[in-house]
Amino acid sequence: MKKLMSIVLALGAASLAVPAAAQFAKPEDAIKYRQSALTLLGNHFGHLGGMAQGKIPFDAAAASLDADVVALVSKLPWHAFGPGTDTGRPTAARPEIWKEEAKFKGASEKMQAEVAKVAAAAKTGNLDNLKAAFGPAAQSCKACHDDFRKR
Amino acid sequence: MKKLMSIVLALGAASLAVPAAAQFAKPEDAIKYRQSALTLLGNHFGHLGGMAQGKIPFDAAAASLDADVVALVSKLPWHAFGPGTDTGRPTAARPEIWKEEAKFKGASEKMQAEVAKVAAAAKTGNLDNLKAAFGPAAQSCKACHDDFRKR
Repeated sequence: MKKLMSIVLALGAASLAVPAAAQFAKPEDAIKYRQSALTLLGNHFGHLGGMAQGKIPFDAAAASLDADVVALVSKLPWHAFGPGTDTGRPTAARPEIWKEEAKFKGASEKMQAEVAKVAAAAKTGNLDNLKAAFGPAAQSCKACHDDFRKR
Repeated sequence: MKKLMSIVLALGAASLAVPAAAQFAKPEDAIKYRQSALTLLGNHFGHLGGMAQGKIPFDAAAASLDADVVALVSKLPWHAFGPGTDTGRPTAARPEIWKEEAKFKGASEKMQAEVAKVAAAAKTGNLDNLKAAFGPAAQSCKACHDDFRKR
């Protein structure tokens, strides 16, 4: 087990240092984590949007992977917005996230629900389904950004 | 559709600008994407490692989510190491990634295979299974970092 631990430490990534009491050792780790999740989400959601808008050809296999990513990754960022994670690394998070917690939670849940619908639509392999689901999900992203993300 | 496009553009994330010919508009987008994927992977793999090592209590539900993330996200970074993505944003990627492509591909595939075993083990809800699978996967991460990641 000692050898195993030394291998993990040797990986040298701060995010691998998991403390006993919390998933993030430092606020900057939480910020980096949530930014990473939102970057992946934005990329794959944007890729689906490109297909929904006819900007890129519809590719059922790519859409299926995008669906898997957005369905799973949309669940991840939220626990990384804990108390004290408003600073520690450059962040576009607005103070309202911690002042209006219920509203922020509601917005995040709305987005997850809409994105789940997009993922299900993308999984059907039918472009019309994707087109129908994409707009409301994009609006749920925008609504949360408008209220809780610095411009 | 114009309205839909304006919503997507209004989201303001560069990663949402999906070009017709490639998933990344700029090398920096590719670098940010792969770093984000590896950050999420490191976090959740590290969380599983903490449980495997007895540093944090084993939690079957958390381990199951970790398993979903590492199984999916371990597949993602590789297409973002395309030609010309060696610069554009600070990166720890070593030039050997593009000089020894077959070796890099082999290392990435070894990691994905080992991480898939960890994910399957974590899904069993049995800590001993997780312990058994974790070491070889951690070594596959380390091996690739040793050869292809700047210290």
